[in-house]
Amino acid sequence: MRWWGWGEDAAAITLPGPAAHLLREQLDLSLPPVGQAGEERGRRVELADVRLPEPSLPEAARRALAEAVGSENVLDGTEERLAHAAGRSYPDLVRLRRGDASGAPDAVVLPNSGEQVAAVLRACAGAGVAVIPFGGGTSVVGGVEALRGRHAAAITLDLRRMDRVLGVDRTSLTASLEPGLMGPQLERLLAAEGLTLGHFPQSFQFSTLGGWVATRSAGQASTGYGRIDELVQSLRCESPAGPLATRDVPATAAGPSLRELLVGSEGTLGVITQATVRVRPAPAERHYEGWSFRSFEDGVEALRALEQRRAAPDVARLSDAEETRLTMALGSTGSTAERAGRAYLRLRGHEGGCLAFTGFEGPGEDVSRRRGRCASILRGAGAVSLGERPGRSWLRGRFSAPYLRDELLDRGVMVETLETATTWSGLHGLYATVGGALRESLAARSTPPAVMCHVSHLYPSGASLYFTFLARQEQGAELEQWRGAKTAACDAIHAAGGTITHHHAVGTDHAPWMEAEVGALGIEALRAVKERVDPTGVMNPGKLLPGA
Amino acid sequence: MRWWGWGEDAAAITLPGPAAHLLREQLDLSLPPVGQAGEERGRRVELADVRLPEPSLPEAARRALAEAVGSENVLDGTEERLAHAAGRSYPDLVRLRRGDASGAPDAVVLPNSGEQVAAVLRACAGAGVAVIPFGGGTSVVGGVEALRGRHAAAITLDLRRMDRVLGVDRTSLTASLEPGLMGPQLERLLAAEGLTLGHFPQSFQFSTLGGWVATRSAGQASTGYGRIDELVQSLRCESPAGPLATRDVPATAAGPSLRELLVGSEGTLGVITQATVRVRPAPAERHYEGWSFRSFEDGVEALRALEQRRAAPDVARLSDAEETRLTMALGSTGSTAERAGRAYLRLRGHEGGCLAFTGFEGPGEDVSRRRGRCASILRGAGAVSLGERPGRSWLRGRFSAPYLRDELLDRGVMVETLETATTWSGLHGLYATVGGALRESLAARSTPPAVMCHVSHLYPSGASLYFTFLARQEQGAELEQWRGAKTAACDAIHAAGGTITHHHAVGTDHAPWMEAEVGALGIEALRAVKERVDPTGVMNPGKLLPGA
Repeated sequence: MRWWGWGEDAAAITLPGPAAHLLREQLDLSLPPVGQAGEERGRRVELADVRLPEPSLPEAARRALAEAVGSENVLDGTEERLAHAAGRSYPDLVRLRRGDASGAPDAVVLPNSGEQVAAVLRACAGAGVAVIPFGGGTSVVGGVEALRGRHAAAITLDLRRMDRVLGVDRTSLTASLEPGLMGPQLERLLAAEGLTLGHFPQSFQFSTLGGWVATRSAGQASTGYGRIDELVQSLRCESPAGPLATRDVPATAAGPSLRELLVGSEGTLGVITQATVRVRPAPAERHYEGWSFRSFEDGVEALRALEQRRAAPDVARLSDAEETRLTMALGSTGSTAERAGRAYLRLRGHEGGCLAFTGFEGPGEDVSRRRGRCASILRGAGAVSLGERPGRSWLRGRFSAPYLRDELLDRGVMVETLETATTWSGLHGLYATVGGALRESLAARSTPPAVMCHVSHLYPSGASLYFTFLARQEQGAELEQWRGAKTAACDAIHAAGGTITHHHAVGTDHAPWMEAEVGALGIEALRAVKERVDPTGVMNPGKLLPGA
Repeated sequence: MRWWGWGEDAAAITLPGPAAHLLREQLDLSLPPVGQAGEERGRRVELADVRLPEPSLPEAARRALAEAVGSENVLDGTEERLAHAAGRSYPDLVRLRRGDASGAPDAVVLPNSGEQVAAVLRACAGAGVAVIPFGGGTSVVGGVEALRGRHAAAITLDLRRMDRVLGVDRTSLTASLEPGLMGPQLERLLAAEGLTLGHFPQSFQFSTLGGWVATRSAGQASTGYGRIDELVQSLRCESPAGPLATRDVPATAAGPSLRELLVGSEGTLGVITQATVRVRPAPAERHYEGWSFRSFEDGVEALRALEQRRAAPDVARLSDAEETRLTMALGSTGSTAERAGRAYLRLRGHEGGCLAFTGFEGPGEDVSRRRGRCASILRGAGAVSLGERPGRSWLRGRFSAPYLRDELLDRGVMVETLETATTWSGLHGLYATVGGALRESLAARSTPPAVMCHVSHLYPSGASLYFTFLARQEQGAELEQWRGAKTAACDAIHAAGGTITHHHAVGTDHAPWMEAEVGALGIEALRAVKERVDPTGVMNPGKLLPGA
């Protein structure tokens, strides 16, 4: 992972001309022409100029940690600490590009087993050292910054060495896995058994199973495969007060759900050391198709019909008009076929319409039966098929948006995403309120934004909304500009009845809204659990719970 | 509800001759002939002879409660207290029939709103009076007995007056309901809107929404409609420390699930005062069909195939050979058609086979498409269709088993059920281990049992097992006999990797196994929540958590 941005250099992408043109117009920004990324605007420092705090791990703690995992697995080199200094949110990237790595831990510790994790937690609880569990480090809500809470030092507990498949139960279709498995590796190992987990968050290439579970990740195919909280059958965690484990059964009525208390706990209660997940046979066939709707409203109604009639695809996605325009510009080739396609849609009354995708995965006969039923409902709702090409193109590019963000930051463009969910009856109100809050907040700073949105996770009772907003960066006040927009959006979400996060989790960024989400006594209940299993408060301080 | 048994006199059923004959043989019991229920064996006392403790509610507490709900809603008449003295488990009925109503509360309090519930909890927390939340009182695990914990008095908080529909959202297919709605009333009110919840536990006719949620009820149609924990979108509770409410959204990633902490809390944290549930259009069509399998193993494999190929019906049920025999005897008419049917099955190699049911509900075209697919998988697995008649008969009698229990108790037969769940790969081991433990425990007391079992709730990774066991009652030692069998079964469940309860909940009966279920620290985590929201420990003491 590039220390200042996303992924690997080799996979970087550049902004196509038509998209650059569109943004230049919309953001009131004289973007430099393609291929000449600005030297002034969007500048980032060199690695040598990055500022990290001096490592301050007490010697006794270092010795105890070395005893727990071996001294070769207690690292405090600059690059290692820098790689664990921040997640990959917009403010993280702004700080890193400025050379600010103040969120770096004093050391990075690499356990190789549940026993080693337990030993590390004992050592840290004893020495008063904060512990930040770390999977892939792709948090976009401030989940992995090494905050110290009331402690003098902090280590990041990187789980990358715990990446084994512990067992596969082909009869029950479950797999017991270690938390440090990264997406591609996990799917590769399951594919060797003819299986898939079907969990594909945008961060898939660089995030881990443990991170998905700890943050209640949804995954782009959650409509069909289920969210990670539905895919996790049982868990084993280590906390400072000892192990927490749930029974490996498909369902139970034995009291409140301990599993659901651990899922989403974001490392504040303990460290996930093992998860048994529900898997499926690897799909024999994948069918992804593009659709056009006259309006966002038409599209939402169609998705609702699909879901409520139990005919939804595994992946369903609907962009609003603004996002459709940018998606078209990003994918534009200027070809004759493309122009003909546009003319056809214009003729059908779809000019300025909305793009949607449906994706089906599974055995061939299932896919064809299900997509036939879906297509007939969509056509009845006024959708026009765009064929498989846009679908395949979406599938190819499904993990690449964060690369585009780096490219935009290079050009002095702020780009941020946020997501929420609500009931179908509240969806349009939430859409308008959040969009309006973002536009108002950024216009007031003289950086009018482009705000776009898609629906991407369907439930019988509602759906998620995923907003992307872009604006000219306020030079020198990038973080204040971001904070203003983020606060306006979160307040709007709360006011309009949405959840503060549908799949990005809480971290530090959403913690101020947790009380609005679960109530004052709800916070107290969660805090009571934390105090019992983490009495000295070493586990990921400052995350999830407000003012902790 | 009859004070000594189940339901209403008018709906009572008698044991048909062939079933009585079968049991008489199997249980080494000279059952008296049909219609001449024994006078000695299975005797029960008259209402006038029931012993209740003197009501001992302190006068100050009574005044505070009268202020909270009105004095006309604080009741301490004998019949009212008796009606709240026990649930409807086998040991409950044994005690009640002996005239032992020592579990009666000092008073029964009837709130009419969330505010009144809050006022009652304040009064009880202040006065040190235990509060037992009460829906329909059908607990079979000791959930509603008025244990006092460390307090001198106890009230039962009966929610029957809180039975309103607060709102229906037809777009999102959700309904906001009060907790005291009983099954038939709830479905009637939803049916008036063209909707259904689809939640049908065996106790349906006498249990409430609040009770279902507080105990993680599954419902006979959970395979299709989902368990109550999946049907509840959001909750509002009152606890002694204040209100707890979750956000009304289809999904969220905002931390551990507070909703899943309240579902299944069995009144130990607070009182559910409102639930928003996911509903569906009332089914235009219902299709229930009987099937025969050569063996339980064949049937289990077929159900697993259905579920893992996403072709499962809404209701799926498979009896083992022993339960099949009793079911046949219970339904036997001795007709020529019946004899011909048996001959046909014998011819197909299904003699001594296993009975199964599939049930489909929904729009007509859905039902016919889905059942076609299901039937083809079942036939491929060697199943023989028995047509709709056995299906319709099961549907008609789906709530009547508890009436049969009363009839058997009248004849001196112990009849008890217990349920568990595990993964598909663990199912046969669990089946054999639990059945063996029951047989061994009861044979050792010279009361060899009939043990029967069915699979009735399917999940991609596993299924539930529901055991029924019958034995000659050990006169004068009925409770010891029961305790011995129950303990043997629970130990066996734990040893074989099952959950201690799939849908009956924990109450007092399963509390000793909760530590085996969630671990010592898991218990501590739950206890920490309880201590925070119920600092004086008035909420349903002695339930759910061991030794509390």
